[in-house]
Amino acid sequence: MNEIFNAQRSVLIAGVTIDGSTVDIAIDETGMIAGIGEDARKAIDADIVIDGSDRLAVPGMVNTHTHAAMTLLRGYGDDMLLQDWLSQKIWPLEAHLTGDDVYWGTKLACLEMIRSGTVAFNDMYFFMDRAAQAVDETGMRATFAYGFIDLGMEEKREAEIKATEALVAHVKSLGNPRIQAAVGPHSVYTVSPEGLAWCGEYAKEQEIGIHVHLSETEKEVVDCVAQFGKRPAVLLDECGCLTPRTVAAHCCWLDEAECRLLGERGVSASHNPASNMKLAVNRAMPYHWLKASGANVCLGTDGCASNNNLDMLEEMKFAALLQKFAWNSPTLLPAGEALAMATSAGARALGTGPGTLTVGAPADIVLLDARAVCNTPLFHADSNTVYACNGGAVMTVLCGGRVLMHEREVPGAEEIVREAAATARSLVGRTETTS
Amino acid sequence: MNEIFNAQRSVLIAGVTIDGSTVDIAIDETGMIAGIGEDARKAIDADIVIDGSDRLAVPGMVNTHTHAAMTLLRGYGDDMLLQDWLSQKIWPLEAHLTGDDVYWGTKLACLEMIRSGTVAFNDMYFFMDRAAQAVDETGMRATFAYGFIDLGMEEKREAEIKATEALVAHVKSLGNPRIQAAVGPHSVYTVSPEGLAWCGEYAKEQEIGIHVHLSETEKEVVDCVAQFGKRPAVLLDECGCLTPRTVAAHCCWLDEAECRLLGERGVSASHNPASNMKLAVNRAMPYHWLKASGANVCLGTDGCASNNNLDMLEEMKFAALLQKFAWNSPTLLPAGEALAMATSAGARALGTGPGTLTVGAPADIVLLDARAVCNTPLFHADSNTVYACNGGAVMTVLCGGRVLMHEREVPGAEEIVREAAATARSLVGRTETTS
Repeated sequence: MNEIFNAQRSVLIAGVTIDGSTVDIAIDETGMIAGIGEDARKAIDADIVIDGSDRLAVPGMVNTHTHAAMTLLRGYGDDMLLQDWLSQKIWPLEAHLTGDDVYWGTKLACLEMIRSGTVAFNDMYFFMDRAAQAVDETGMRATFAYGFIDLGMEEKREAEIKATEALVAHVKSLGNPRIQAAVGPHSVYTVSPEGLAWCGEYAKEQEIGIHVHLSETEKEVVDCVAQFGKRPAVLLDECGCLTPRTVAAHCCWLDEAECRLLGERGVSASHNPASNMKLAVNRAMPYHWLKASGANVCLGTDGCASNNNLDMLEEMKFAALLQKFAWNSPTLLPAGEALAMATSAGARALGTGPGTLTVGAPADIVLLDARAVCNTPLFHADSNTVYACNGGAVMTVLCGGRVLMHEREVPGAEEIVREAAATARSLVGRTETTS
Repeated sequence: MNEIFNAQRSVLIAGVTIDGSTVDIAIDETGMIAGIGEDARKAIDADIVIDGSDRLAVPGMVNTHTHAAMTLLRGYGDDMLLQDWLSQKIWPLEAHLTGDDVYWGTKLACLEMIRSGTVAFNDMYFFMDRAAQAVDETGMRATFAYGFIDLGMEEKREAEIKATEALVAHVKSLGNPRIQAAVGPHSVYTVSPEGLAWCGEYAKEQEIGIHVHLSETEKEVVDCVAQFGKRPAVLLDECGCLTPRTVAAHCCWLDEAECRLLGERGVSASHNPASNMKLAVNRAMPYHWLKASGANVCLGTDGCASNNNLDMLEEMKFAALLQKFAWNSPTLLPAGEALAMATSAGARALGTGPGTLTVGAPADIVLLDARAVCNTPLFHADSNTVYACNGGAVMTVLCGGRVLMHEREVPGAEEIVREAAATARSLVGRTETTS
């Protein structure tokens, strides 16, 4: 069976169910969908045939905001006040973080994402060259941003500029079309306007994306208004950071005018409902305003330290239920829209294609178990996918036509779990010995 | 392997991890835990030995509010206004419901619960003799209440009294110590004070529990105050329905005085966070007040029509995150408390034992995969169980010493999925033909 994994070959998914119809999906040797339908198998001479019976095909999930290597910190600190959690748990650990830690943390994250149907993610962290190495080995897609934090200090800003430039150059040198670089100004409360303006300008010059945290907490808004006399989205816009290639994470405390601004600029707004609930940010993203504005609302899990998993199927349920609860409307964010947030909107945010099962699109495809209990009965596939199933219903994952998981087998999974667990123990051991 | 399933034999779980220690768990032929520790294996002469390496043992989950047979309605109607959903989707289907439907719906629910680590549930619905038959076959524990609804009409009340008495007599006649009856006054808005008073009196006389919906929506409270001049919990109390054997589901709109009343009466309050969010009830259970009052706060999924699954591991995460978000406190309902809600508090609510892994307790035990990605790294098992894992991490389930699932195999699972799917199709076919 191993020969089917992670090789760029032509693939036929035979007799799979899409929207209630049984079809074939033909994937050519460049990893694109060459045909969908009864006669699709004629479009290619398939090297690999995957039996699609008892399987539902959906587009691969795109996780538009995470800190993948933080999967190593899963469960290290929970149920704490934000400032205590950061100062007592997260920052001491991150001070001891090495490139090897980031490599194994990212490998673990990729394994978890593949097992739950995610094919692409938008990452912001440190030692991103090692994170890129991990992704390069898995066959997933990812966009990497170095977390740019100058705290208003010119010297630090210069260092962050160098680190950003180095990452962008490194990613280009990889020549892996599935791996992109972005600029990662952390937020308006950690980056000066000068730093933000450099990020905006550099992203424009390099024709790459921007990944930024925006209006996660009320404090961020209040402090920004006090310091700069304007709200965070307005400040970002003045610094050239709101573009059609910008992914703004959280967006909880945006007001209606800021939502319109994001819509006008064509920004992607990444909803992170589980993290927002766990950290008690006290307001849910105003999805209705963002949707009305034309902004591209997509979905992300945030890092494992504040979620504590990377399961986009679970995250869709949190999104659809949180929106209904927080905005008091049981009709808000129905299942089909939640699935689109996690797939086509995510793909648009990262520029990885249409994120749909259509001829000419990259073959980023997830096969769900139609016989799973969560798919029984099967009245509406979207409803079951969003509300009843979790990542455990994902059986097979293809990214750009390469098979990353089949029948729940991911090559090398045992080694990744073993090494990541040992790496996490070692990191905590080093941290707690020196503190 | 089939000989290990659903037989009352002595069992040794060898070398399993509990709270970070490796121990044996010995279970005697009556289904009780006879020993836990290094020497526990000496306590019994084991018929069955289960390898506990790479497994974490936790108590079996107890789902304290559901309508199991509604699993047949999973995904039939979603994202609708409550009244539209009931009148256009749920009620027309329920009007065509047969005993066979309830049997297969409950079988499907039991399969789903076992696969996600639940050993006992508190059910309210119709055709409960057929539901009891389904549970009797699975080896789970359940408490059944006929949903008593008189709508203020004396004639209907007499019929509901007869139906309740018949169910209680039927459950007694089964002589299955794992199956209990309860009285099920649906709510203050569907049962007259006379009906409620009969239910309270009858439960007392029969020494059985009461299962009731309480303060799910603001409308329920407003209408109750308008009609009766008092809030719902006060009305239930005056009718003798608040007892230490009462499970009150939802409890979203209780005020602080009502929470104190539930505490004084020793009531169990079943939190149903996913259902409350999906139906946009606009207020989360006031957990902090109920906890302070001494009420027994437990956990339930509600029916699959409003959740849309029965996974108590997922429900724990919804509970812990909703409480933090809704009451603006990241320290509220930490992981350990969420796990206790789903286990010991649930067991107390249904009177099925302490719901803990202790000598002398019924052997209601779940083994989780310690090597699962969601348990990597494994800093705090409770945190991973509540925040990172879902029911897919459950490998083995014992209820009263009987093995209901082992290494994710449940005997008869394929037949249940096939028959339940066919039953659901048939039910919808009959409904849509006649409507």
